[in-house]
Amino acid sequence: MDFDNLTLEQAQRSLGLKWNYYDRDVIPSWIADMDYPVAEPLRDLLYRVAEGSELGYAPFMQQERLGEIFAARMHSRYGWTLDPAECDDMTDIVQAIHIAVAVLCDDDQQVIVHIPSYHPILSACRNMKRDILASPMVKTGQGWQLDTDRLDREIRPRTRLLMLVNPHNPTGRAFRRDELERLAEVVLRHDLWVVSDEIHCDLVYSDAGPHIPFASLSPEIARKTVTFNSATKSHNLGGVRCSLAHYGSAELRKRFDRLPAGIRGGSNAIGHRATRIAWEQCDEWLEYTRQYLQRNRDDLEEYLKTNLPELDHRSNEATFLTWIDCRGLALQEDPAAFFLREARVGCYSGPLFGEQGTGYLRLNFATSRAILREKLDRMAGAVRAL
Amino acid sequence: MDFDNLTLEQAQRSLGLKWNYYDRDVIPSWIADMDYPVAEPLRDLLYRVAEGSELGYAPFMQQERLGEIFAARMHSRYGWTLDPAECDDMTDIVQAIHIAVAVLCDDDQQVIVHIPSYHPILSACRNMKRDILASPMVKTGQGWQLDTDRLDREIRPRTRLLMLVNPHNPTGRAFRRDELERLAEVVLRHDLWVVSDEIHCDLVYSDAGPHIPFASLSPEIARKTVTFNSATKSHNLGGVRCSLAHYGSAELRKRFDRLPAGIRGGSNAIGHRATRIAWEQCDEWLEYTRQYLQRNRDDLEEYLKTNLPELDHRSNEATFLTWIDCRGLALQEDPAAFFLREARVGCYSGPLFGEQGTGYLRLNFATSRAILREKLDRMAGAVRAL
Repeated sequence: MDFDNLTLEQAQRSLGLKWNYYDRDVIPSWIADMDYPVAEPLRDLLYRVAEGSELGYAPFMQQERLGEIFAARMHSRYGWTLDPAECDDMTDIVQAIHIAVAVLCDDDQQVIVHIPSYHPILSACRNMKRDILASPMVKTGQGWQLDTDRLDREIRPRTRLLMLVNPHNPTGRAFRRDELERLAEVVLRHDLWVVSDEIHCDLVYSDAGPHIPFASLSPEIARKTVTFNSATKSHNLGGVRCSLAHYGSAELRKRFDRLPAGIRGGSNAIGHRATRIAWEQCDEWLEYTRQYLQRNRDDLEEYLKTNLPELDHRSNEATFLTWIDCRGLALQEDPAAFFLREARVGCYSGPLFGEQGTGYLRLNFATSRAILREKLDRMAGAVRAL
Repeated sequence: MDFDNLTLEQAQRSLGLKWNYYDRDVIPSWIADMDYPVAEPLRDLLYRVAEGSELGYAPFMQQERLGEIFAARMHSRYGWTLDPAECDDMTDIVQAIHIAVAVLCDDDQQVIVHIPSYHPILSACRNMKRDILASPMVKTGQGWQLDTDRLDREIRPRTRLLMLVNPHNPTGRAFRRDELERLAEVVLRHDLWVVSDEIHCDLVYSDAGPHIPFASLSPEIARKTVTFNSATKSHNLGGVRCSLAHYGSAELRKRFDRLPAGIRGGSNAIGHRATRIAWEQCDEWLEYTRQYLQRNRDDLEEYLKTNLPELDHRSNEATFLTWIDCRGLALQEDPAAFFLREARVGCYSGPLFGEQGTGYLRLNFATSRAILREKLDRMAGAVRAL
């Protein structure tokens, strides 16, 4: 296992969306796939699937005991004790977010979203026609911070649901206990529901964290919280469409049951199996990957400071997605459009994460050290040519 | 390609639900997976997925042009001309059925279901708390028949939606044009919506059919009909979770959009790809499979007549699932439970398909000729031992 060996030619052979969306000469740095091969036990599964033509009905989630595996994992890694019976299957997190918005917030109520926001949360609110209370994060010398005092003042009686993403996408923050506890106070005082999307929890770097599940803060906060998780981000399984909800109270489950399991769609041939294998057999790969990403993070930070000082950036505590303020370039256009055209690097455009993201972009650094360097060189070249 | 070579030992190595649900000594004959390997182009896809660790985000359906491929296929095979732009993606048919019941029929309205019924239709009505108007099919010398005259008399003003399954599961009927036209008259007179589930359309046998898409009957009936289809049944892809809806009118699409795409869940790593390959490159495999199944159907029919005359059965015109009346055995229990215990053959129990199914079972004959023979020998042995 050595991700340094990954070449551009190999990555370009991928069948996935990431490498097939842009023109051939673009290095894609947008959606949250890593360019790395999956762990060996997952490759073994894929070969077994190929050998046996395994595209039929897959065992039910209950049989695969994902809830139990998840509970054991949360307990051993993050000290969170939960009952597997409180877990429920979902196909994917984007769907889960849509359902949450639909069932935890009435038509005339309001959803709190930290800005910049994981973009499917914004789409879900738009698709379900729910009003958003934007809670802008603040860029400080200590990195991106929640502004929970301001949020506390702006909450209205019709504000009903807080969408928390922790570790945070796109800023790469892993929120500290004191920040989460301050948020929890506000949640309890205003009697809000919370969706805590924690799918990046296994990718917190060694100088931050450890990850703190929001529902683990107290029994009171657990009762208000539905936690979403999956193996997709940490194990590079973005297409397996298997995720898990933990309901902190019976009322939360009851609300989700308004959209019965049948309407949520069934499990596919590989999703549960891949998830179980990821959570049970791939910790060594995960640890290697986390260290590799942490080195990429440091390389990126160093490179930006040295070669692209016009870009304002806070180093990631978690995730392989990073949020870059390009306003210092004083471009007359979206920086993602600029870097796509001039550097042939395809990043997500800032405003996708909320209108306050104008002048920003999100860059994915989960690639080989050399490909990351090539991306950054191209970007620096484009800036020098300005 | 020779399905005769398939052994019990091979089938038992399967990772799927079909072969892992019962005890090891049971021959499973329940869910609608075939025991056959998928077509060569699909196996090539699976090996490529394994080689490249392809579990990331898959290209969107729009990119994969499934609507166009589906339209071309429906036109060339069944003479149905449709606009690809009227197609929409779904994850799986069960989900699509749930959504249809939710959006085409209000809480206080009624859904028409032919009985026996593909069981997820019944579950969907139960889950969504919609009242069912059961339209029992009639067993005649010419096979299972719709009783559309009786249905016509029983329709009330609150009856809103007809769930049609054609080819029909579990009876294996491929409805003739005159039967469908009589049904269409009733639909138009009572201004009903129609869901036409046609996922078995490519498995109509040479002495029946050809398949007639309900929406192809007339422009008037198309406007009332949403058609569901997929490659899952005909190409043995029950776990790929990719299906397609064709809306015969803008109003139908508008109603489905009440549950926006996000809430329906996203495409997985293999679904669209496998579907496209199945529809574009696997017709030779499909033709071989259909002929193989037709021989199995004939073997089954002959065997039942000769060795199990107590069972009353109508030969299939389509599908590899067959509906067997076991009431002649005068068992004091569910025949599926009897054959599971005494013959170690695992069939679906009749009442799952509607309470009128008491005394029936559904048997899957998509296996090798030898395994089918083994199932039937075991069942005949259990009956002789009565």
